[in-house]
Amino acid sequence: MNTANKIVAKMIAEDNFSRWLGIEPILIEDGHCILKMKIREEMVNGLGSAHGGIAFSFADSALAFASNSYGRLSVALECSITFAIPLMTGDEITCEATELSLTNKTGTYHIEISNQKKQKVAFFKGTVYRTSKIWES
Amino acid sequence: MNTANKIVAKMIAEDNFSRWLGIEPILIEDGHCILKMKIREEMVNGLGSAHGGIAFSFADSALAFASNSYGRLSVALECSITFAIPLMTGDEITCEATELSLTNKTGTYHIEISNQKKQKVAFFKGTVYRTSKIWES
Amino acid sequence: MNTANKIVAKMIAEDNFSRWLGIEPILIEDGHCILKMKIREEMVNGLGSAHGGIAFSFADSALAFASNSYGRLSVALECSITFAIPLMTGDEITCEATELSLTNKTGTYHIEISNQKKQKVAFFKGTVYRTSKIWES
Amino acid sequence: MNTANKIVAKMIAEDNFSRWLGIEPILIEDGHCILKMKIREEMVNGLGSAHGGIAFSFADSALAFASNSYGRLSVALECSITFAIPLMTGDEITCEATELSLTNKTGTYHIEISNQKKQKVAFFKGTVYRTSKIWES
Repeated sequence: MNTANKIVAKMIAEDNFSRWLGIEPILIEDGHCILKMKIREEMVNGLGSAHGGIAFSFADSALAFASNSYGRLSVALECSITFAIPLMTGDEITCEATELSLTNKTGTYHIEISNQKKQKVAFFKGTVYRTSKIWES
Repeated sequence: MNTANKIVAKMIAEDNFSRWLGIEPILIEDGHCILKMKIREEMVNGLGSAHGGIAFSFADSALAFASNSYGRLSVALECSITFAIPLMTGDEITCEATELSLTNKTGTYHIEISNQKKQKVAFFKGTVYRTSKIWES
Repeated sequence: MNTANKIVAKMIAEDNFSRWLGIEPILIEDGHCILKMKIREEMVNGLGSAHGGIAFSFADSALAFASNSYGRLSVALECSITFAIPLMTGDEITCEATELSLTNKTGTYHIEISNQKKQKVAFFKGTVYRTSKIWES
Repeated sequence: MNTANKIVAKMIAEDNFSRWLGIEPILIEDGHCILKMKIREEMVNGLGSAHGGIAFSFADSALAFASNSYGRLSVALECSITFAIPLMTGDEITCEATELSLTNKTGTYHIEISNQKKQKVAFFKGTVYRTSKIWES
């Protein structure tokens, strides 16, 4: 298990909400990750599809895992999401976080969410502030 | 109970995730709403504060309630959030959605989240697409 | 002339592009400013209205002036803009930057652009990184 | 010359501001384009680098060209930009617009700007509304 995997395993162990969501890591590398989860009935909103906060939360976990993978505690400053296709109960979704930029102080990531039909359902861009605090491994 | 209140009451009744979050409406008007909720242990992430998706989801519910209040089914297209202050377990937070713009096809809202110390903790801007579907009351 | 005014006067003196745009300060205070400019023929795009970059640039100057007003050199990290109403040649527009949040490292501002009919035409949210460099006055 | 090229040639002919910027198309295809331009002295701001509005405007032109390439008049609704590396006078920059999503009503594009050293300097996400108006060719 590499360092990035150890850090993310520790993050998930302490991350109650990512566990409630049922997020599972598929691949964790420095500045990069792939995650999966399944849409459950309790995630649905009043419009008959998954609440927008579910897709956002999924991508936001990917942002946290990809940006903290280097071992520096990193916190989200600003995130945006574009919703293309609604998510329905039972959908199995994956997301991939790709690093766009990494400086000493900040990192920026592009994250795409896809459903089981390989349709891209949402697009997320997030920027983190990299603190000087180090994750203990 | 005015029309906006009836629509939002119906939305909340069908919105499993907003109910899981414990969102309660304080004020619902056309294009405007104030909501409250409390941060619980199960909303915390691996960094010791509320997962960023919690604040986003709270504001996204406010976006849905404010924009659907007119009776036209409206769905989020694009949302962004800026995180200023972390939320901790036990925090009692409120948010207010203010309408910036309303056209036949789209609506844009500014939403601020505050904690019990009256600190502004997050800032959200969201744009919805207004479908031609009407909420039955 | 207060410190904020002196800093912004110096910024404008060195800011070739804001001068090309014809931006004039109406009010400059710590964390707050109001600016005006006029849409000229050379700012128009291929769709018959002002290029989206014109409204963005106007708001981005307001972000720079409001955030640098305290005397700490501050640079934009992330900005978003929502376009509500097109701008036409001859339109006289104003914008106001309001501070949403200010920490030691970052500042976030909401900026609204209005036209001469008092219609709100665009909405901007921007976050700056506050460097440790001080403006000489 | 394909249809996408004809439309963009017509757009550029009418787009005074893109011409002031000195934007030149390298590749124009349906939903995709690559553009280049050079940073001039008159584009600089009060902080010694190109005004943030210059990078935004460059990407916004790419958004317009990529989204209008299909022949349906499309207008920007919401755009965000993340600034990673400052642009300096003399820099020769390119940008590439990639289509993330296309529906009947909206299109979303990811646009990256690079400098002559192949460094990625800014990241843009934009969503357009696709009107029913058709470009005459």
